[in-house]
Amino acid sequence: MHKTDATHDPNRTSWVESANDPATDFPIQNLPLGVFCRKDEDEEEASVGIAIGDQVLDIALLAREGLLEDLEDEDEEIEGALDSPDLSALFCAGPEIRQMLRERICELLTAGNDEINGKKKLRKAALLPMSGVRMLLPAQIGDYTDFYASIHHATNVGSMFRPENPLLPNYKWVPIGYHGRASTIVVSGTPIRRPNGQIKAEDDTPPVYAPSQRLDYEMEVGFFVGLGNELGVACSVDAAEEDIAGLVLVNDWSARDIQKWEYQPLGPFLSKSFATTISPWVVTMEALRPFRCPAFTRPDGDPRPLAYLDSEHNEHSGGVDLTVEVYLASAAMREQGTAPVRLSRGSMREMYWTIAQMLAHHTSNGCEMMPGDLIATGTVSGPNRENRGCLLELTWDGPGQPVTARTPIELPTGEKRVFLADGDEIIMRGYCERDGYRRIGFGECRGVIVPAEKLS
Amino acid sequence: MHKTDATHDPNRTSWVESANDPATDFPIQNLPLGVFCRKDEDEEEASVGIAIGDQVLDIALLAREGLLEDLEDEDEEIEGALDSPDLSALFCAGPEIRQMLRERICELLTAGNDEINGKKKLRKAALLPMSGVRMLLPAQIGDYTDFYASIHHATNVGSMFRPENPLLPNYKWVPIGYHGRASTIVVSGTPIRRPNGQIKAEDDTPPVYAPSQRLDYEMEVGFFVGLGNELGVACSVDAAEEDIAGLVLVNDWSARDIQKWEYQPLGPFLSKSFATTISPWVVTMEALRPFRCPAFTRPDGDPRPLAYLDSEHNEHSGGVDLTVEVYLASAAMREQGTAPVRLSRGSMREMYWTIAQMLAHHTSNGCEMMPGDLIATGTVSGPNRENRGCLLELTWDGPGQPVTARTPIELPTGEKRVFLADGDEIIMRGYCERDGYRRIGFGECRGVIVPAEKLS
Repeated sequence: MHKTDATHDPNRTSWVESANDPATDFPIQNLPLGVFCRKDEDEEEASVGIAIGDQVLDIALLAREGLLEDLEDEDEEIEGALDSPDLSALFCAGPEIRQMLRERICELLTAGNDEINGKKKLRKAALLPMSGVRMLLPAQIGDYTDFYASIHHATNVGSMFRPENPLLPNYKWVPIGYHGRASTIVVSGTPIRRPNGQIKAEDDTPPVYAPSQRLDYEMEVGFFVGLGNELGVACSVDAAEEDIAGLVLVNDWSARDIQKWEYQPLGPFLSKSFATTISPWVVTMEALRPFRCPAFTRPDGDPRPLAYLDSEHNEHSGGVDLTVEVYLASAAMREQGTAPVRLSRGSMREMYWTIAQMLAHHTSNGCEMMPGDLIATGTVSGPNRENRGCLLELTWDGPGQPVTARTPIELPTGEKRVFLADGDEIIMRGYCERDGYRRIGFGECRGVIVPAEKLS
Repeated sequence: MHKTDATHDPNRTSWVESANDPATDFPIQNLPLGVFCRKDEDEEEASVGIAIGDQVLDIALLAREGLLEDLEDEDEEIEGALDSPDLSALFCAGPEIRQMLRERICELLTAGNDEINGKKKLRKAALLPMSGVRMLLPAQIGDYTDFYASIHHATNVGSMFRPENPLLPNYKWVPIGYHGRASTIVVSGTPIRRPNGQIKAEDDTPPVYAPSQRLDYEMEVGFFVGLGNELGVACSVDAAEEDIAGLVLVNDWSARDIQKWEYQPLGPFLSKSFATTISPWVVTMEALRPFRCPAFTRPDGDPRPLAYLDSEHNEHSGGVDLTVEVYLASAAMREQGTAPVRLSRGSMREMYWTIAQMLAHHTSNGCEMMPGDLIATGTVSGPNRENRGCLLELTWDGPGQPVTARTPIELPTGEKRVFLADGDEIIMRGYCERDGYRRIGFGECRGVIVPAEKLS
């Protein structure tokens, strides 16, 4: 199902020197898609770009210069898609066209190819240093859905609030998810304002409207939907797999005190909707082919997924061997020039449900998915403490321990954190590694906490 | 706060004869906004229109003909808004502009005015019988949120699932809401396919993926957001009141069996996201001025809303005296020519939270609202059985009675219903009446249940 090809050849190098640096997230084997504008330009001038080393290649410009004519011959709509400041149309075009684009860009960027590199003026116009561009959201996101697919996360959170019954009976049958807020999805680098909200102490005092004191992040992975489905027509797991365009990192910022008071009976609402940050580069499913892996191995005794969620292909290669990491830098650390400290490292291999199962489940009632819809996995947590993808889990002492007795994280400055302080920056990273292949990365998903809006 | 003016004069008549019929929902005092296309035209030719009697007035055409020049002089962007097949731009323009449009259309349609009526060719082009047009969604809805604002509904539903603790402790403090699915909001008249989904019997058998057997409607009212707010900046209740553009009827179709199995811990998801129907005509807040009323009177002992949800204006006139009714017509009834039977009648006066409180709460964490966002109230239920806005409540025998022991509704054909059958049509209606003012109505919000997608 996920055959690799010449674009994955680890020995291929690029004439863009920085792409050959072993530490880069963006070697020629990656070629993630994004939307950018030049720093001195208006957002209305935004273009589709591809990351290569520390540079951005302007794809819209290549199309205008006639370098992508073969693709345009193949699919008439691709011209409009390449010229749009939104990747939805390219997601919608399907995996074959994206693979053709990948192959062509790979060819253009390979060491020795002179179609861009040999034309000084074109090269200068089409290849821009990342430091000279501003990344925008990759697509206008119509609907955003957040799943809850890590059984480790669900069990940890369940243990805190329902120690006698941590995992609800539906968990191993239903990929649990809920609708999120699309309008407040922001791109990496956007400052995150601490939300005000209703908070209720444990005692008998009334709730107050005040800044959240338990601000948290959640390390998640998001995927963009391609063509989508027609209203009323469900999508199989295998069809869903073919309709996922690519992945981004997602920080599902969460205000735990607001969440605790508001979430019953209809689920989290304002505790999440103040902001969700995503990384700007969409790593395509074509780039991820070498890193697909079997779905999570269900422990003995766990039920087999119902037929509409089951597929042999999915079981063998529905997983993604993606490692994700969370770092924190406090304002004091940044002032002192101290490097961000790693809080956790987890793997998408640990998710109980695959992304194809999530998408198939989402359409199983006939719900219409649209190009550019974003679906996130929920917090990526693993079996060990170091794998926990949010502070709610990370500073908790584990099953049997009270939710309130938390062990702070100590920072290199001596500062301590149970939840986030103003000025803290959360930096998420993700990468795929496998013997015989070039490591590819996701870039960063960053956000600094700024103080809450003053209450009058 | 809600002064009436000459456009509300009950004695005003129109040269459009059907608008003077006492039974019409659309007298000259109403003038609701919608988006329509001619039946023989493509959706891409859609225009903004206004309902008048049994006719639709093409507003985009009036603008092109120069009849709305005074408005265009007032606000440069209004020309684009009037020429758009989406009401968002008009919502965004604010209450003053909408009031000017209302006054001008009122003038043009008043008996004796010849600016349209006197020009046969213009009249024929601009005034179309409703039977000759197709109504579309009034706006491209970015985000959709559903509240839970009827305390009667929350208490009834809570009694079924938590008899010892029907109303959760947060209810009287927090306007409870959750994110809904925007992509599956459809306009009145769209057939509703019965969803398939995971259903779990009470016994020990595993869940099955099958057509829902407990398909229900929920009678709600929705409101469209105007300009919205900036990310991170909350909106006061009074500012929220000014930023609500108008109301529609909403049917929040619900599959109760899917809902029961999936909803913990993150709330309803696929049990609701298969479809939500809205009525096509947006009754503006300007038209509703005579029908504003005090907010719900909180029983003695209930807390006063926290300051960010409190306002004297809101308390005096934050309510809307809107009556809503639900009718059912089975396939057999339609075949026999039997009129739809009324299932319930309720009032928006009974909502514990006002629409301004809902919007203010939604922005209280800094969540960005966008022009065209839709917010619904949740099921409008009142204190008596006849006021219950969904079958889940209506066929339940009340507190202390088991959820499973339900009393079916008997239809004139002898058919019985506990939940909806294929072929059933649900028709929602809404209207405002007050002594000294002309009754105005919302038109209809209709949907017929069609059989579930066949499982392979």
